[in-house]
Amino acid sequence: MFQHMRASALWVLARHGDAYRARGWVQGEWSGRKLIKEQVSAMQQKEFTVTCRGRGLVDITNRIRDWVAETQVKTGLCHVFIHHTSASLILSENADPDVCADLERFMARLVPDGDPLFEHVAEGEDDMPAHIRSVLTRSDLTIPVTGGQLALGTWQGIWLWEHRYQAHQRRITVTVQGS
Amino acid sequence: MFQHMRASALWVLARHGDAYRARGWVQGEWSGRKLIKEQVSAMQQKEFTVTCRGRGLVDITNRIRDWVAETQVKTGLCHVFIHHTSASLILSENADPDVCADLERFMARLVPDGDPLFEHVAEGEDDMPAHIRSVLTRSDLTIPVTGGQLALGTWQGIWLWEHRYQAHQRRITVTVQGS
Amino acid sequence: MFQHMRASALWVLARHGDAYRARGWVQGEWSGRKLIKEQVSAMQQKEFTVTCRGRGLVDITNRIRDWVAETQVKTGLCHVFIHHTSASLILSENADPDVCADLERFMARLVPDGDPLFEHVAEGEDDMPAHIRSVLTRSDLTIPVTGGQLALGTWQGIWLWEHRYQAHQRRITVTVQGS
Repeated sequence: MFQHMRASALWVLARHGDAYRARGWVQGEWSGRKLIKEQVSAMQQKEFTVTCRGRGLVDITNRIRDWVAETQVKTGLCHVFIHHTSASLILSENADPDVCADLERFMARLVPDGDPLFEHVAEGEDDMPAHIRSVLTRSDLTIPVTGGQLALGTWQGIWLWEHRYQAHQRRITVTVQGS
Repeated sequence: MFQHMRASALWVLARHGDAYRARGWVQGEWSGRKLIKEQVSAMQQKEFTVTCRGRGLVDITNRIRDWVAETQVKTGLCHVFIHHTSASLILSENADPDVCADLERFMARLVPDGDPLFEHVAEGEDDMPAHIRSVLTRSDLTIPVTGGQLALGTWQGIWLWEHRYQAHQRRITVTVQGS
Repeated sequence: MFQHMRASALWVLARHGDAYRARGWVQGEWSGRKLIKEQVSAMQQKEFTVTCRGRGLVDITNRIRDWVAETQVKTGLCHVFIHHTSASLILSENADPDVCADLERFMARLVPDGDPLFEHVAEGEDDMPAHIRSVLTRSDLTIPVTGGQLALGTWQGIWLWEHRYQAHQRRITVTVQGS
C-alpha cells in the first residue's frame, strides 16, 4: 500500500490498526502506510505589496495568476482584497491603454478634485475624491479558479486603481480556496 | 451497520478493521460497512450561457436558484462571475419593470454614449460606456445559501446587465460551496 | 490518549479498533479516545439585524469583528450580505465623520431624490434613488480573516448605508469560513 502524494488540500495519514493523525498541507511521499486524500476545500492566503507611482491603474493580473497556479488548486475561488480606502480594485479591459485613460478621465469628471462640496480636505483636494472613487469601485473581487487557472475572461484584467496623487505602497491580501 | 447516504459533501468509507478510503461526491447506498459523513465545505462549479438581445437587464435569478437547490448545499455561499468587461451583474428590485427602465435611463445619463471624452471608440459609441458601466456595477456577486436555498431578500433579483447595443451570448460561472 | 478540543472546524472522533464517527462543531473534552482534528474549511453563518433611523451610514464593524473572533477561525474569509435593495454596504474611512457627510452629499447630488427621470415613485421620491445608490455601492463584501482577526486596513470600517428617509430594521447575514 503505497501512494505518492502532493498535497494541495488535506491529507489524513492512516496507520493500519493503529492511530489516525490529521496532516494538513503535507507534501512528500509515504510508504508502508495507508493514505487518504481528502479533496476538501482549504485556504491559502498571501499578502502582496503593490507600488503605485501616483494616481492611475496598475495591472496586477500576472502576479495573482502566477500565485493561483502555485497553490495547485484546481477548482475553487480566488479572493483579492485591498486594505485601503484611497485605492481600489476593478476588473477591466486588458488590451487597449486608451481604456485606462478613458476610465481616469471619466472618474475625474464624475468626482472632481477640490470640489467645494467636500469638508474632508485635510490631506488635500484629492483626499475625499479618493474615498468616493473607492466606494464607487471595489475593495474586493472574487474570481473563479477552473482547471487549475484563474478563470478570467479573454479581455479581463485585474487592476489596482490608485486614487491619490502621491506615490504609495498598497497592501493586498489574496486568498485561494478549493481543491 | 447500514446507512443511506446522499452526498453533497465528502464521504469517508470506513471498512471495519480494514482500510480507509476517501470517497468524494459518492452518491448511493452502502451496507455492511461503517460510514462517516464529513460535513466539509466542497466546491461545485457550473458554467451558464445567457443570451442577451442587446442593451438591457436579464433576470437570471431562477437559473441560479434552481442550480443551488440541485447542489444540495444547506449552508454556504453561492458566487456568480461574469467573464466579460461590457456586461455586468447587479442585485436589484425584482418586482416592478419600471425599476429596470429607470436604472437604464439613469446609467445612460451618467455615462453618455458617444461622449467626446472617450478615445476607446473602435467598436462604436457604446464601447467605452459599456466598460465604465461594468466598472461601476459588478463582475461578481456572492450570496449566502441558508436552509438549502439561495438566501436572497424578498425583493432581490440577480440581473445580468448587457451594456452593448448588439445581441451577445454572455458566459457566467457559478460556484457553490458549503455542506 | 486524551486531548482537549475546541472545535472551530471539523472533528473526527476515532474510537480505537472500533467505529469512526464524524463530529461536526463538537465543543468539549473527550477522553479514552483518539481524536483527529481536521483543519478543513467549515462555514459558520449568523444573521444580524441593524436598526437604521433613516438615511445615513451606520458603522457595523465591531459587531462583525466580534463575531469573527467568536468563530475561532484563524485563516479564512468573512462574507457580509444585506438582504435589501434600498440599503447597501460599503468599506470606507472609519475615523472622520466628515467623510460620511461628504459621501452622503456626493450621492445626493449624483442620484437626485425626486428626479423627473424616474417612473418607479410609488413609495416616494427616495424610492428609486435608494435602488440606484444600492446598485452603485455593494450588496455584499468579503474580507479576509488573518491571525484570527478580521483583516481590515487601519482606516477601513464596514458601513451599512440606509438610503430611505424612514427608519428601517435591516437584515444582514454574515458567513465566516476557514480553519
